[in-house]
Amino acid sequence: MPVGNIAPPKTIYPIQGIHIGITAAGVRYKNRDDLVVFEIVDTAKTVAVTTQNRCCAAPVHIVRAHLQLDAPHHPSVEKSVTATELSPRYLVINTGNANAATGEAGRQRALQVCEALAAKTDCAIQQVLPFSTGVIGEVFNSEAVIQGLDASLANLAADNWLAAANAIRTTDTIAKVASEAATVDNRAAPYHVTGISKGAGMIRPNMATMLGFVATDANIAKPLLQQMLYELTNVSFNRITVDGDTSTNDCCVLIATGDERSELIETSDHPHYAAIFNTMQSVFVRLATLIVRDGEGATKFITVKVTGGATTQDCCDVAYAVAHSPLVKTAFFASDPNWGRILAAVGYSKALHINPETIDISLDDVSICTRGQLDATYTEAQGQAVMSRPEITIHIDLGVGEATDTVYTCDLSEEYVRINADYRS
Amino acid sequence: MPVGNIAPPKTIYPIQGIHIGITAAGVRYKNRDDLVVFEIVDTAKTVAVTTQNRCCAAPVHIVRAHLQLDAPHHPSVEKSVTATELSPRYLVINTGNANAATGEAGRQRALQVCEALAAKTDCAIQQVLPFSTGVIGEVFNSEAVIQGLDASLANLAADNWLAAANAIRTTDTIAKVASEAATVDNRAAPYHVTGISKGAGMIRPNMATMLGFVATDANIAKPLLQQMLYELTNVSFNRITVDGDTSTNDCCVLIATGDERSELIETSDHPHYAAIFNTMQSVFVRLATLIVRDGEGATKFITVKVTGGATTQDCCDVAYAVAHSPLVKTAFFASDPNWGRILAAVGYSKALHINPETIDISLDDVSICTRGQLDATYTEAQGQAVMSRPEITIHIDLGVGEATDTVYTCDLSEEYVRINADYRS
Repeated sequence: MPVGNIAPPKTIYPIQGIHIGITAAGVRYKNRDDLVVFEIVDTAKTVAVTTQNRCCAAPVHIVRAHLQLDAPHHPSVEKSVTATELSPRYLVINTGNANAATGEAGRQRALQVCEALAAKTDCAIQQVLPFSTGVIGEVFNSEAVIQGLDASLANLAADNWLAAANAIRTTDTIAKVASEAATVDNRAAPYHVTGISKGAGMIRPNMATMLGFVATDANIAKPLLQQMLYELTNVSFNRITVDGDTSTNDCCVLIATGDERSELIETSDHPHYAAIFNTMQSVFVRLATLIVRDGEGATKFITVKVTGGATTQDCCDVAYAVAHSPLVKTAFFASDPNWGRILAAVGYSKALHINPETIDISLDDVSICTRGQLDATYTEAQGQAVMSRPEITIHIDLGVGEATDTVYTCDLSEEYVRINADYRS
Repeated sequence: MPVGNIAPPKTIYPIQGIHIGITAAGVRYKNRDDLVVFEIVDTAKTVAVTTQNRCCAAPVHIVRAHLQLDAPHHPSVEKSVTATELSPRYLVINTGNANAATGEAGRQRALQVCEALAAKTDCAIQQVLPFSTGVIGEVFNSEAVIQGLDASLANLAADNWLAAANAIRTTDTIAKVASEAATVDNRAAPYHVTGISKGAGMIRPNMATMLGFVATDANIAKPLLQQMLYELTNVSFNRITVDGDTSTNDCCVLIATGDERSELIETSDHPHYAAIFNTMQSVFVRLATLIVRDGEGATKFITVKVTGGATTQDCCDVAYAVAHSPLVKTAFFASDPNWGRILAAVGYSKALHINPETIDISLDDVSICTRGQLDATYTEAQGQAVMSRPEITIHIDLGVGEATDTVYTCDLSEEYVRINADYRS
């Protein structure tokens, strides 16, 4: 059962210039939507970040090649496409098969999908970006995807965000959508930011989440948009973990569809920048934390907030050590305020500047450890009370500096084991 | 249920110069032995390695101070003891309370135990090494330990190794003992190596295991003995993981009791060295793998063997990434040959030299992945057959070099979650 508020937004703003088509192509699952096509207006700017897993999936190689991303391209992909400055016009996303560990044949099959979609829509193959999620290591059923393209193109619509979020689910139990508006001075209309994500297991993104697609109607220059995407993922998708497993298929795409009718935003000094960035951050953090709330077997949503560190990296390392610890996660599942496990994880984290005698730990508003020892005012009753909540913040103050960082995670339950033992995802 | 052959050796060789006393001191558990005293002959050489967890326990600070180990000593401990060249005469080991995250009071209480034992046995306080295991962050019940010393000293005996292994258990379901003899040319009697260990959870030792105590009757110079201990832990206790949590209390002690009646072994060139080292290695690996076989909730014993790496560190990083992956571990629990999860873990490991297209993976004698893709000869029936075995070797050939390394782990079951959710260890 997902934890806490997981409802989709009451209003999901369509983004001008984005149309989404969906169909049930039968890639692996039967009788459910599994194929999504995004159509993007030709004036839009599109940027992406991809997984740092070296055994990355075939579509990831192709996304990198088509977007000329600074990542090691696969030679045969580089040869087969000529990178251009043409802006992406279509995203094609399937669930049920990750097309990972499928070698050269997998890359050819992903390219065939791009080729078919390009032919049907009269764009260049490089203007199609493919994304896959599902089981790793099985032959990619490109025939089913290609057969499903016509149906997807036939129902392209501006208001299909929620349906798309549903269609890209694997072990996800909920559709993940976020949508917000940003009002800025001296502009008649607000900006809008809408996005979807998917993921519930194999979640420890490194540069991106399992899959995330976010669009805005602001007119943002491409270099700034790419920089914004790095910054946004580093406070959202790059700060979550369910099980510490970095996927082969992680990709996150950010699209800005605004054209010359909207002011061009080229630098972070622009007066509209802060409002747009803050709204995007809110959408990104919501999409990322929805993944944690829907983490496989999760019964608790845990925010690990680290303050007082010497560096942000130290804070991040400490937060991840705590967020990954199976002993901490099982203690939270059991509602046991076993803070010694938290302190042990701080101690073995990769952080460089740790002083055991300056560490404070609290759970929400309950101080449990002061200067490395049990807080004299702490009672087990206080600990039990806070641990029974479905959403808990672990606040660790390292007491050696001013840096901070935050990571989001969930507990580890018997259900996590059952899901991953019973289901080949 | 522990996995595979976990029986103690038919013959447990006493080690000349070592006597062990045991009692039920009531530190935390009732009606069971929980306190062990090792008495060591004064001519023995004793070396140790300790945890790299920065939030290490009070007794670890004192062991480091008393042995003058190269580790950051706690100022107040350094002040309270004058390090000497006196050889350790007593080890005092309790279970039920780790005396970790207990601050200055914890260190004073650990020193009081050393002081009491030194007074009763007329040795220097620096000649007593304290070890604790159990719950973290609770006041250390030194009164109970001190009251139990007389009873422990009263039953000192050479043949108490198995009883000692039982007495230091926490969540361990079995006593962990190994004992072997090494026959060498031109020597009337064989050398003997006997040791015990404990640990089942919070297992990802970094320089040592939860607790391990090994002794030999060989006469080995102290500098060589320390070097041997580093090498031995790096192929045994430093190559196992249950849950990836590095404990606050890990310590491993190696004692050589041989005196001038036995040839002094000062370098690895000595003709007896190889036989003794190999026997020690066998004992160390057995003690370490017994911890994995008894891993909390374990149903399978998994050897992750990595070959063909550019460096040993790469192989170690890959092996640990696979051994830590909750997705790999739950797949093994389910007997599901989901090799995509193994490949994904190889891809996100810290190893520097990974080529996805040269990776081979086999499970025991079944080749499942060749050059990064499904092996054409592989059948699901083969995979199912091998996965149903209780002991499985995952062999990963990176195909980029000649280095190798091996890590031992177990699967992740619902029982692991139950144990750590139900029990405050």
